[in-house]
Amino acid sequence: MSDADTAKDQSEAERPMLGKLLHNGVQRIVMQRPERMNALSMAMMKELCTALDEAAANPEVRVVLLGAEGKVFCAGHDLKELTAARAEADGGKAFYQQTFDQCAELMQKIVNLPKPVIAVVTGVATAAGCQLVASCDLALALDTATFCTPGVNIGLFCSTPMVALTRNIGRKQAMEMLLTGESIDASTAKEYGLINRVVQADYLEVVVQKYAEVIGSKSALTVKTGKEAFYKQADMPLAEAYAYTSKVMAENMLANDAEEGISAFLQKRTPEWKDS
Amino acid sequence: MSDADTAKDQSEAERPMLGKLLHNGVQRIVMQRPERMNALSMAMMKELCTALDEAAANPEVRVVLLGAEGKVFCAGHDLKELTAARAEADGGKAFYQQTFDQCAELMQKIVNLPKPVIAVVTGVATAAGCQLVASCDLALALDTATFCTPGVNIGLFCSTPMVALTRNIGRKQAMEMLLTGESIDASTAKEYGLINRVVQADYLEVVVQKYAEVIGSKSALTVKTGKEAFYKQADMPLAEAYAYTSKVMAENMLANDAEEGISAFLQKRTPEWKDS
Amino acid sequence: MSDADTAKDQSEAERPMLGKLLHNGVQRIVMQRPERMNALSMAMMKELCTALDEAAANPEVRVVLLGAEGKVFCAGHDLKELTAARAEADGGKAFYQQTFDQCAELMQKIVNLPKPVIAVVTGVATAAGCQLVASCDLALALDTATFCTPGVNIGLFCSTPMVALTRNIGRKQAMEMLLTGESIDASTAKEYGLINRVVQADYLEVVVQKYAEVIGSKSALTVKTGKEAFYKQADMPLAEAYAYTSKVMAENMLANDAEEGISAFLQKRTPEWKDS
Repeated sequence: MSDADTAKDQSEAERPMLGKLLHNGVQRIVMQRPERMNALSMAMMKELCTALDEAAANPEVRVVLLGAEGKVFCAGHDLKELTAARAEADGGKAFYQQTFDQCAELMQKIVNLPKPVIAVVTGVATAAGCQLVASCDLALALDTATFCTPGVNIGLFCSTPMVALTRNIGRKQAMEMLLTGESIDASTAKEYGLINRVVQADYLEVVVQKYAEVIGSKSALTVKTGKEAFYKQADMPLAEAYAYTSKVMAENMLANDAEEGISAFLQKRTPEWKDS
Repeated sequence: MSDADTAKDQSEAERPMLGKLLHNGVQRIVMQRPERMNALSMAMMKELCTALDEAAANPEVRVVLLGAEGKVFCAGHDLKELTAARAEADGGKAFYQQTFDQCAELMQKIVNLPKPVIAVVTGVATAAGCQLVASCDLALALDTATFCTPGVNIGLFCSTPMVALTRNIGRKQAMEMLLTGESIDASTAKEYGLINRVVQADYLEVVVQKYAEVIGSKSALTVKTGKEAFYKQADMPLAEAYAYTSKVMAENMLANDAEEGISAFLQKRTPEWKDS
Repeated sequence: MSDADTAKDQSEAERPMLGKLLHNGVQRIVMQRPERMNALSMAMMKELCTALDEAAANPEVRVVLLGAEGKVFCAGHDLKELTAARAEADGGKAFYQQTFDQCAELMQKIVNLPKPVIAVVTGVATAAGCQLVASCDLALALDTATFCTPGVNIGLFCSTPMVALTRNIGRKQAMEMLLTGESIDASTAKEYGLINRVVQADYLEVVVQKYAEVIGSKSALTVKTGKEAFYKQADMPLAEAYAYTSKVMAENMLANDAEEGISAFLQKRTPEWKDS
């Protein structure tokens, strides 16, 4: 949730909401509204959805990094925007449903994206901002980053954030974050399973780039196939999950990249991926 | 399971099974049969169900603490009572089904209670006693508390306790507890995700009270809404969970407490909750 | 995946794929193709299935230990065998489906076996080898053991291994293993929840034997009942899980071993199990 009470400054109107940079197959998407704590206004969520769609469609993009400028990674929904909607004839009802539907679409777009999405958390990740981190396939964080779901403090329980949160961390730990609204530090977030690695500031840039490039060096088709199957099987009972993934693997074996990858491995050489 | 072979002493007949104290919105429910290791006899389970129903119905209750007197938090089912039922015409069959149904009702009553339930574990939590801890939304424990599911040692696998246990901790860890019957200490229980915090005896009272009051200070309607959605969405596939919680949040926004909470936040003042 | 390019040596033809030893109710099954990194060829998977069926059928077997000779516990599927099948008329399609179906059958046979299966991991567990560990009910590992799911490196995502992996460890941690292909050490595997205990080489034999005997000393019927219910309830929503396990426990109470176990406990003597 955003406390940003700075009036829109002039630079904001001129500057895009998202910074985008594609380098070596790594697509960086950077939220650039630090003065608004990178709150997920309707506009910001739509921009993110568009940027993710573009990343999905662009064959040069192999991995997506989701970061943010400023001390707040993302403060969740835009409380001023939500409050303004109370003035509407229906008291905001339609707008609220649109907002949370748009949010759910954004989060599921990350999950359903055929390319890995890695959160790079350099500040405070709050409410739907914490949900963004939980929704990404992987997450790296500065040792000073913090995470919380404090909606309960303002009478608005973090009910959509907890969908992502409870699919990352244990129930008792999630419930404590949701009921107390208290923050956890990066180290605790790693222990709970919310993030993958904690990095010190001096090392962040090299670690992030290396991590993304390692993943970006894999076969795009293989990664797409695997990521899709990962989330699908997670919602299935065991026997169904095996029936489904056995088919996925048999088909995967027939792809050029599996033939190339296995040949290269047996011949002790570096594979050259062709599928996409 | 209870090894309590002390004959009912006179004080027991006079003294209620449960101690109850309501202070500052915090309802304490304390099992008071230490001489029977607070075993979950049919009577104890019914008393607990009644106490929980009362806590649910009483608008002054904002949080429930579930504790116990003595060195054993709860030793699980009452083995003497179960054994006595073997003398019945059906060999105990009907009574056993009633017992486990009553137990399942108790555990689900905690989960479905519209208020947070926090276990305060000051001793040994065994079998259905361990299940009580796992079923609570949150759990604090003394550093000397221990946890186990030792039914396997007496030929009675902890099949209902594992329902709660496996929804708190990893499968391999749960399976080890269930197949070996061995105890884990409080530190391990925290690491596994079974409890939230480990507290030393000197600090227990202040930590428990503070923890409960922090949670009790939130909007009752918000907490009720969120807790209900928490467990419901946990059993849904991702898309369904998002469709459901998006509606929950949109409705939550229309509640008075969300309007008050967000206004207070934007105005940097303390909110005054009205919904219940 | 196997890099084993050693030609079949003569000893291999003479020596069974699996070592088997039954002692004190503990059935050891040891993969004995270190020169092939204990790869899961079709033949090896069938042998393992047969050995597990025998263990299930033999009333003297109370616990199964699954181990391996050599520095590689199991390198996953046999890449040479998979590659050879490309020469078939269908490009290997039928054989690949058979292979992954056979693998899924093997993994589910472990889960569905009416006796506990404990992995003893003394080396590298890769891909379907890591899946074997994840599929076992329990796992002990040498402190030098490592675990990875590196299929992504050869264009063949570990889609069936992740079914077992994601039912043992957190999603972010599983995704990192799957997308980077990197190894984790035994200590990390324990932290993630993939294994139960890390043991130093000097202690391995005594720890494994003791661990297996402790579990083997329980009532066979009780363990069978509990293991079956464990995995069944894990795939159910909460209310269904309780309805199901309450029946399981009521029936369990009527078994001879529960009567004997509870009597022995109340009489402070060692129980004598009779059910099987």
